Amino acid sequence: MSERELFQPLSGNEMPRFGGPATFMRLPAMEASEGLDVAFVGVPLDIGTSNRPGARLAPRQIRDESRMLRPYNMATRAAPFDSLRIADAGDVAINTFDLGKSIGIIERHYDALLATGCTPLTMGGDHTIALPILRAMRRKYGPVGLVHVDAHADVNDEMFGEKIAHGTPFRRAVEEGLLDPKRIIQIGIRGTMSDASDVDFANANGIRQVRIEELMARGPDDVMAEAREIAGSEPIYVSFDIDGIDPSFAPGTGTPEIGGFTTFQAQQMVRHLMGLDIAGCDLVEVSPPFDSAGMTAWIGASMMFELLCPLAASIQAET
Amino acid sequence: MSERELFQPLSGNEMPRFGGPATFMRLPAMEASEGLDVAFVGVPLDIGTSNRPGARLAPRQIRDESRMLRPYNMATRAAPFDSLRIADAGDVAINTFDLGKSIGIIERHYDALLATGCTPLTMGGDHTIALPILRAMRRKYGPVGLVHVDAHADVNDEMFGEKIAHGTPFRRAVEEGLLDPKRIIQIGIRGTMSDASDVDFANANGIRQVRIEELMARGPDDVMAEAREIAGSEPIYVSFDIDGIDPSFAPGTGTPEIGGFTTFQAQQMVRHLMGLDIAGCDLVEVSPPFDSAGMTAWIGASMMFELLCPLAASIQAET
Amino acid sequence: MSERELFQPLSGNEMPRFGGPATFMRLPAMEASEGLDVAFVGVPLDIGTSNRPGARLAPRQIRDESRMLRPYNMATRAAPFDSLRIADAGDVAINTFDLGKSIGIIERHYDALLATGCTPLTMGGDHTIALPILRAMRRKYGPVGLVHVDAHADVNDEMFGEKIAHGTPFRRAVEEGLLDPKRIIQIGIRGTMSDASDVDFANANGIRQVRIEELMARGPDDVMAEAREIAGSEPIYVSFDIDGIDPSFAPGTGTPEIGGFTTFQAQQMVRHLMGLDIAGCDLVEVSPPFDSAGMTAWIGASMMFELLCPLAASIQAET
Amino acid sequence: MSERELFQPLSGNEMPRFGGPATFMRLPAMEASEGLDVAFVGVPLDIGTSNRPGARLAPRQIRDESRMLRPYNMATRAAPFDSLRIADAGDVAINTFDLGKSIGIIERHYDALLATGCTPLTMGGDHTIALPILRAMRRKYGPVGLVHVDAHADVNDEMFGEKIAHGTPFRRAVEEGLLDPKRIIQIGIRGTMSDASDVDFANANGIRQVRIEELMARGPDDVMAEAREIAGSEPIYVSFDIDGIDPSFAPGTGTPEIGGFTTFQAQQMVRHLMGLDIAGCDLVEVSPPFDSAGMTAWIGASMMFELLCPLAASIQAET
Amino acid sequence: MSERELFQPLSGNEMPRFGGPATFMRLPAMEASEGLDVAFVGVPLDIGTSNRPGARLAPRQIRDESRMLRPYNMATRAAPFDSLRIADAGDVAINTFDLGKSIGIIERHYDALLATGCTPLTMGGDHTIALPILRAMRRKYGPVGLVHVDAHADVNDEMFGEKIAHGTPFRRAVEEGLLDPKRIIQIGIRGTMSDASDVDFANANGIRQVRIEELMARGPDDVMAEAREIAGSEPIYVSFDIDGIDPSFAPGTGTPEIGGFTTFQAQQMVRHLMGLDIAGCDLVEVSPPFDSAGMTAWIGASMMFELLCPLAASIQAET
Amino acid sequence: MSERELFQPLSGNEMPRFGGPATFMRLPAMEASEGLDVAFVGVPLDIGTSNRPGARLAPRQIRDESRMLRPYNMATRAAPFDSLRIADAGDVAINTFDLGKSIGIIERHYDALLATGCTPLTMGGDHTIALPILRAMRRKYGPVGLVHVDAHADVNDEMFGEKIAHGTPFRRAVEEGLLDPKRIIQIGIRGTMSDASDVDFANANGIRQVRIEELMARGPDDVMAEAREIAGSEPIYVSFDIDGIDPSFAPGTGTPEIGGFTTFQAQQMVRHLMGLDIAGCDLVEVSPPFDSAGMTAWIGASMMFELLCPLAASIQAET
Repeated sequence: MSERELFQPLSGNEMPRFGGPATFMRLPAMEASEGLDVAFVGVPLDIGTSNRPGARLAPRQIRDESRMLRPYNMATRAAPFDSLRIADAGDVAINTFDLGKSIGIIERHYDALLATGCTPLTMGGDHTIALPILRAMRRKYGPVGLVHVDAHADVNDEMFGEKIAHGTPFRRAVEEGLLDPKRIIQIGIRGTMSDASDVDFANANGIRQVRIEELMARGPDDVMAEAREIAGSEPIYVSFDIDGIDPSFAPGTGTPEIGGFTTFQAQQMVRHLMGLDIAGCDLVEVSPPFDSAGMTAWIGASMMFELLCPLAASIQAET
Repeated sequence: MSERELFQPLSGNEMPRFGGPATFMRLPAMEASEGLDVAFVGVPLDIGTSNRPGARLAPRQIRDESRMLRPYNMATRAAPFDSLRIADAGDVAINTFDLGKSIGIIERHYDALLATGCTPLTMGGDHTIALPILRAMRRKYGPVGLVHVDAHADVNDEMFGEKIAHGTPFRRAVEEGLLDPKRIIQIGIRGTMSDASDVDFANANGIRQVRIEELMARGPDDVMAEAREIAGSEPIYVSFDIDGIDPSFAPGTGTPEIGGFTTFQAQQMVRHLMGLDIAGCDLVEVSPPFDSAGMTAWIGASMMFELLCPLAASIQAET
Repeated sequence: MSERELFQPLSGNEMPRFGGPATFMRLPAMEASEGLDVAFVGVPLDIGTSNRPGARLAPRQIRDESRMLRPYNMATRAAPFDSLRIADAGDVAINTFDLGKSIGIIERHYDALLATGCTPLTMGGDHTIALPILRAMRRKYGPVGLVHVDAHADVNDEMFGEKIAHGTPFRRAVEEGLLDPKRIIQIGIRGTMSDASDVDFANANGIRQVRIEELMARGPDDVMAEAREIAGSEPIYVSFDIDGIDPSFAPGTGTPEIGGFTTFQAQQMVRHLMGLDIAGCDLVEVSPPFDSAGMTAWIGASMMFELLCPLAASIQAET
Repeated sequence: MSERELFQPLSGNEMPRFGGPATFMRLPAMEASEGLDVAFVGVPLDIGTSNRPGARLAPRQIRDESRMLRPYNMATRAAPFDSLRIADAGDVAINTFDLGKSIGIIERHYDALLATGCTPLTMGGDHTIALPILRAMRRKYGPVGLVHVDAHADVNDEMFGEKIAHGTPFRRAVEEGLLDPKRIIQIGIRGTMSDASDVDFANANGIRQVRIEELMARGPDDVMAEAREIAGSEPIYVSFDIDGIDPSFAPGTGTPEIGGFTTFQAQQMVRHLMGLDIAGCDLVEVSPPFDSAGMTAWIGASMMFELLCPLAASIQAET
Repeated sequence: MSERELFQPLSGNEMPRFGGPATFMRLPAMEASEGLDVAFVGVPLDIGTSNRPGARLAPRQIRDESRMLRPYNMATRAAPFDSLRIADAGDVAINTFDLGKSIGIIERHYDALLATGCTPLTMGGDHTIALPILRAMRRKYGPVGLVHVDAHADVNDEMFGEKIAHGTPFRRAVEEGLLDPKRIIQIGIRGTMSDASDVDFANANGIRQVRIEELMARGPDDVMAEAREIAGSEPIYVSFDIDGIDPSFAPGTGTPEIGGFTTFQAQQMVRHLMGLDIAGCDLVEVSPPFDSAGMTAWIGASMMFELLCPLAASIQAET
Repeated sequence: MSERELFQPLSGNEMPRFGGPATFMRLPAMEASEGLDVAFVGVPLDIGTSNRPGARLAPRQIRDESRMLRPYNMATRAAPFDSLRIADAGDVAINTFDLGKSIGIIERHYDALLATGCTPLTMGGDHTIALPILRAMRRKYGPVGLVHVDAHADVNDEMFGEKIAHGTPFRRAVEEGLLDPKRIIQIGIRGTMSDASDVDFANANGIRQVRIEELMARGPDDVMAEAREIAGSEPIYVSFDIDGIDPSFAPGTGTPEIGGFTTFQAQQMVRHLMGLDIAGCDLVEVSPPFDSAGMTAWIGASMMFELLCPLAASIQAET
C-alpha cells in the first residue's frame, strides 16, 4: 500500500473554505475502482419518503457544508487521511420516477463498488436506500450486524400497501437474511405509533431496541458498551438516520420527532464504534429544503467524518 | 337547481381570516356526490418531479392561504358562489411510493367525480397529474382542447427513460387521443432545452406554442384572442403551471425559469377565458418548501379563484 | 358510552400524511355538543402580546403539523382514541380588534362547551386566553389547581397600565378566585425582570415557583413528584406555554428566554401528570411567523398529544 | 432659518453603512420641538390588522434598512437635507393592548408635533393610524385632500362589527370631515371583495378610484396628471400602503394582493407629487416577519425618501 | 480544432438534476491550460463590499443552481457546447484577509489563463474583481470597450478613503488606461447618491450612462442598438452586476436598489450582444446569504449561460 | 459619584418593546467620555472571517433584540443599572476594506475609551477584534488574564499566510505579552483540526484548555471553580465567542461546530465570574445572515447582559 497516492482534504490555507470543489471535504472526485480504500457516495433518492421530501438534495448540500471540516479528529486523535486512500466517488444515478428501478440501480452500483475492495460511506437520500446497500453487502459478507441510530425502527411491514419505502428497510433486510437479527441494535427510538407492531417484530426476532428514555437514563457510554457486545467481532453495517438527533439540532429532515438526543451524544455514540469491524456506513434523511442556514447538512457532514474515523480504523486493522 | 343550498366562503366578519377551517376559501368540506357544481380537489403528488420536490405540500398550503380570498371578483364582477354549489372535496389519496399506481388512483377518482356531474378545479401536485385527469375527461367528453399556461411545453417523449413524468403529460395526452392537438395552445414557453424536439413535436401535431418573447411583444390581450380562436366552442381543459409566472412572483416551484410573465398578466389571460366551454382546470407545481412567506401559494389560491370565475360562467351557460 | 362512534386520526395508510383535512391529527371536524369527550379548540388571539405577535396563526399551523402524529403513545402505552370520542371543534371567533370583547367571547364559548360535558384541550393564541377559560372553568368546577409550565410567571399586575394582557392572567385568576393559589405550581421560570414583584406575589399567595435553575438541578421527575403533591386530587388546569421550552427547540414564540428546558424534559413533565384530575389544558404562545420549518408548531402538536394522554386518562377514571 | 444647524445623514465614508445609529438614514435622534422642519416618526401599531400582524416591527426594520440611503435623489436632483432641518423623532408610545386608547395617544402626539410647525413623515404601523393622524391634520389645516396609493380602498364601514380597524380609516375620515372627498384619489385598488360597497361609497362621495387595470393601461404619468388635478393647490395628505406594490417586490405585508404595480412605477408616482402642497405623508403596512432579507423594509425606506423629496419641496415653497 | 473532445453538460437523463458534480452546468472540472476555449471561473472575494457581504459564497451557489440549465438556448438557437471546448476551471484562491494581495492573485491568475488562449467567464465575488481582470485583459488586448449593466456606476474615487473597493473599479480602470472611455456604456444606473460626482466623471470622460428611467422609456432593444454602436468592432469586456436586476428578482445581493429592470429585459439586453467581439465577461455581486430559495443564484446561473452564447459566437467568429 | 445621573433601560411600560431607540437595552446613546462606568460598544468588523461572513451586522441586530431585556437578573439578583452609569457608546468606525487599518482604528478607539475610566463591553464583529482591544488593555493594565469561551482556541500561527485573522488573536496576544499565558483558560474547545499545533501551543505556554468532553463530564460549576483559580485576583479579560454555544441554539455564526454546550450552561459559566476583577468583555462572531428569527442575536444580547452583571460587580468592588 506504500506507494499509492493518498489525498488530504484541500486545506483552507490553499483555497479559502468557501471556494474550491464542492466534493466531500474538497477531496478529489474519483471512481472507487481507482484504488480507493474508502469512497464517499451520494444516493440522492427521496421517493421513499412518507411525509416531507427533499432528501434528494442532501448529497449536494452535505458536500457543500463539509468544506469546513479539517482532517484531524481532535477528540479521538484519528487521522484517517494519513494512511488510507479516500475520495469522493460521486452520486448513484437513481431513477427518481420509479422506486423499484432505483432499488435495482443502487444494488448494482454497490455490487460493483464492493467488488473493487472499497468501503462505502453513503450520504442519503432517504432510508429506503439501506435495503439495496444491504443486499450488496450480504452478497459480499453474508448477513451482517447492524448498529442503527434513529428515531424510528423502520421495521414496518408495509406503508400504504407497499413493501418498499423508507419505513420498511430493516424488516425486509431481516426477512431476506441480509442482517443477523441477534446482532441488531436500534438506538434512539421514540415518537407516536399506529400500534405496537414495531416492538413485536423486534421482540419476535431478538432485535434490541433502545428507546430514547433508556438512552437518556443510561447515557451513551453505557448503551454503546452494550452495542459493542451485540455487534461482536463480525462485520457490521452502521446506519445513522439524522432524525435520531433532536430536531432542534437537525430540523432539516422529513419526519422529525421531538425529544431526541444531542449532537454531542451522537458523537459519543459513534466514537464508541472504534474497534468494531465496520463494512459500511450510511447517513440518511437530511432534507435541505427544511434546513436552516445549512446546519442539518453541517451535522450530516460532521457525522460523516465521525463515521469515517472508526470505519478507517476498521480497514487499517485488517491490513 | 333553485332549492339547493349554496355555500359562501366563511366571511372575515364571522371568523377572523386567520381562524376557521383550512378548506379552500373556508368553504364546507363535502363530497362531489353531494350535488356539487364545482369541487376544489387536491392531488398531493410530487414523485413525478425531476428537480426540486415539494408539490405534495401544495394543496394544504394553497388552502391555508386562500383564507384571504373574498367571494366577489372586483375586476370582472363575477360572483360564482351566488349561483353555484361549490365546496372543497378534499384530496385524492395518491400512493406516494408508486407513480404508476397513483396515475390509476387519480383516473378512478376523476371518473367517479365526473360521473356526479361536478366540475373539478384541481390543485396539484406536479404536472404529471394532468394525464390521468385528461384520461377521465376524455371518457366523459371525448378529446378536448387545451389552454396550457406554462414555462415548459411538457411534451418530452421520455424523462430518464420513463414515459410518465411531469415533463411528458401532454405528449402522452396527444398520443392517447385525449386532446385535439389542433385545439391546443401553450403560452409562456421559455428556458433552455436539450434539443428542439419540443418544437418539432408541436409543429408536427399542429400545436400552437406561444413563446415568452411573443407573449411579451404582443401582450396578453392579443395572445388570448388567438387562444379563444384555437379553443373554439367545444370543451377545453385549462392547465396552469405556476412556473409560467416569473419566479420573482412564484419562487415556490420545482423547475423555475427566469424571464417569465407577471401575475397581472396571468390574471388578464385567465379573465379572457370567460365564455369558453371549460370542462376542468388545474393549477400545478406550487412547491411550498421553496416558497417565501406563502406568496407562491397565495398566488396559487388567487389564480384558482380566477379560474373558478370563467369555469363557473361556463357551467351557468349550460344550465 | 358503548355504542358511540369513536374517531381514529386518519391513518397515513389511507391518505398520505401531507394530504387530508387540516384538522388536529386529521380528526373529524365536529361541535363539542355532538357528544364529544374531548375537543381540540383553537383560540387565534394574539392582541394580548407585548413583544412579537403571530400567535393568531398558531391553531392553523399546529393543526397542519399534527398530521404526523400517530394515535398511540409508545412511551406510556396510552391510546386515548380507543375509548373516548375526540374531535376537532374548530376555532373561537375572537374579535381581533378588541381584547376586552374577545375575553367575553372566549368566556361564553367555554361556558357553552363545558356545559356539554366535553373537556377542552386548547391551542392558543397568546397566554391572555387562560383568563377567560379559567373563568368558565370556575363556574363549572369552582376554584381549580394549576400546573403551569412557562418561562414567565405571568403574574404582572399591569402591562402598560392594562389589567388584561398576556403577562397578567394568573394574577387576575388568583384575585378573582378562579384558582386556589395553594394548588398552583409554576415551573421553568427564568429571564430578566423589572423588579421582584413576581416573586413577591407568589410568596404572598403561597404559589410555588420552580425556577429553571431548580428544575435543572433536581430534574423533571423530582419536580413533578412535588407538583403532584401540590395539585392533589381535586380538578386542576394545565397551562403549557411553549416558551418554557428553550428557544433552540421552539424559536417560534413571542417572548423567548434563553436557558430553557428541552422537549424531552417537557415530555417527561407532562407524562407525570397521569392520574391527576385534569379539567382542561392549553398550549399557548406558538408564533408561526418566527418559526423555522414548522418545528415549533410540531412541538406544539406533539405536546398537545402528550397533554391529551393524561387528560383522557382523567376522563376515563371518572366514567 | 439661516443659522440653524442642518443634518446630513451619516455618510458611509465616516461610518460603514452596517454600523452607526439605527435611526432613519442615520440622522440625529431629536424631538420635533427642537426646530425640525421634517420629522420621521414611527407608529408601531398593528392591532388594527385583520390578517397577518407584524407591522409593529416595521419602524425599527425600516430604519435599519434606511442605512443604505444616500442624501441626493439622482432621478430628480432633490437634495432635501441641504436646506431643511430633518431628523428622526422616534416612535409614538402606543398602547398595544387597546386600539381605542392608541388612537387617542396618536392624536395627541400629532397635535403636539404639528403645533411645533414640524411636518411629519410617518412609518406605520398598520393603516389604522391614518385616522388619528388625519384628525390632528384637520385641527391644523381643516379638511385636506388625499393621494392614497394602496391595493385596498380602506373604506369599509365595519370590520367584525368595529368602526375602527385597518380597513376603515378613510370612510371614517370622510364621515368626520377630515378629508374633502372631492379631493381624494385612490390608486392601485384591486383584489377580491365581499361586495361592491367600497365602490358605492366612493361613487356616493365623489371619491376617485383608479383600479389597477386602469393604472396599468394608462401608466403612472397619465394617472398622476389626473391626481394632481384632483389634489389641487390646497394641502393634501399622502398615504402610501406598501401593499399597493406587488407582493413579489413587497411580500412583507399583512394582506397582500397579487397583480400590483412595480417599485419603479411607485417611484414615478411619488415623483409626480412634486409641487403639491403636502401637509404630511405616511408609509404603512410593512410587516417584517413576512419579509425576505429586509427587501420590503428597504422598499419602505426608499419610498420614505422619495416621499420626503416632494414634501421638502412643499415646505421650501412656503418659506 | 476538429479532433478535440468537446463537453456537453451532464444530462438529466444520465443523472438526475439534483445529483452529479456541482460544477457549472455539471461540466468537467478542468484547467484552462487543457485546451479550453471558454472557462467558467469563480472568484469568491467579498471583502470589497461596503454594505452586506456574502458574495464569497456565490460561485458555489451559482454552480449548484446551474444544474437545471440545458445546453440549448431556445430563444436564440445558440448551442455553444456543440463547437467549443468549455469546462469549469474552478476558483481563484484569493486571500480573504487582504484585498490588495487578492487583487494581485487575481491579476496573475487571469494573466496565466489568458495566456492559454482561453476566454474567461467569471462568477464573482464582488465588483472589485473587475479591476484585476481588466488589468490582465489590457495586457493581452490593450484598452477594451465595456458594456456594463448595473444599478451603480462604480466610478467612485474612493470609499472610506480607499482607492480599491467594489464601488471604484471602473474609475481606476479608466485612469489606468485599461478601458477606452469612449467605448464604455453603463446601463441601469439608479439609486440615491452622495453627490453628482459619478455623473461628472462620466461626462468628463465621455462615458455613456443610461439611467434606469431612460432604459424603461426606450426599452432594451433601442438602448442595446446604441450599446452596439458604442462597443464597435474591437474587443469589449462585459460586466454584469446582478443588482442591475430589480431586487424582487434578485434579493440576494449586497447593495440592492429598488426600481430596477426585469430578468426578461436582462436576457434581451445580453442577447443583443451577439456579434460583438467579447474578450471576457463577469457576473458579480450575487450574495447567497440574502437570497431566497436560490433564486438569485439561479438568475446568476441563467445569465452566465446567456453571456456564454454571444461570447461563444465571438470566439467562433474568430476561428 | 453620588450626584451622577444613572440610566435605566427604557421600560416596556413606557414604550412598547418593539418601539423606541435601537440602542442596547434602549439605553441612552452617549460617549464614554460623558462619565460612563460601562459602555456597550459595537465593532462591526468581519473581514477577519475565514468561512461565513456577516458578523459586521451583529451590533445592530444584537441591539435590536436586546429590547426584550429587563434590568434585573432574577437568577443572581444583580441590578447593575441601579448603581452604575451605563450607556450605549455606539460603534467603532472600522475600515471594512483593510484589516490592518481597522486594527489600528480599534486600538486607538479603545485607548481613548479606557482613558476615560470607562469599562467596555464589546459586541463584535469577528474574533480578530480581540487583538486590538487587548493591546489597549495592556497599555492600561499590563498583561491581563483571560477567560475565553469558544469552540476554537484561536491560537493559529497564520491563516492563509496572514498573522492577523479571526483564528489567530490569542497567539498574537501571548506573543506580544498582552496576556499572561498562565492566567488563560479556554473553555469549550472542539471540532476538527489541521494538526495538533493548537494543543502544542497551549501546552508550551501553560495555557489551560478545557475541551468540550471535559466540560460535559465535569459540568460548568466545577470547570468554573478552576477558571476562578486560574484567573486569580488580578485583572482579566473575558472573551465569549458565540460559537462556543451549540449551533442548535446559535446557528447565526460563521464557523459553527457541532457538539457544543447549551445556553443554560453558558449562563452558569458567566455567573461564576462574579467576584473576579474584570477589565473588559467581548461577545463575538454573531452573524445575522445565518441566524433564524433573531435567536442568535437574542442569545448574544442575553449573554451581554449576563456579562454586564459580574463586570458591574467588579467595578462596584473597586469603588
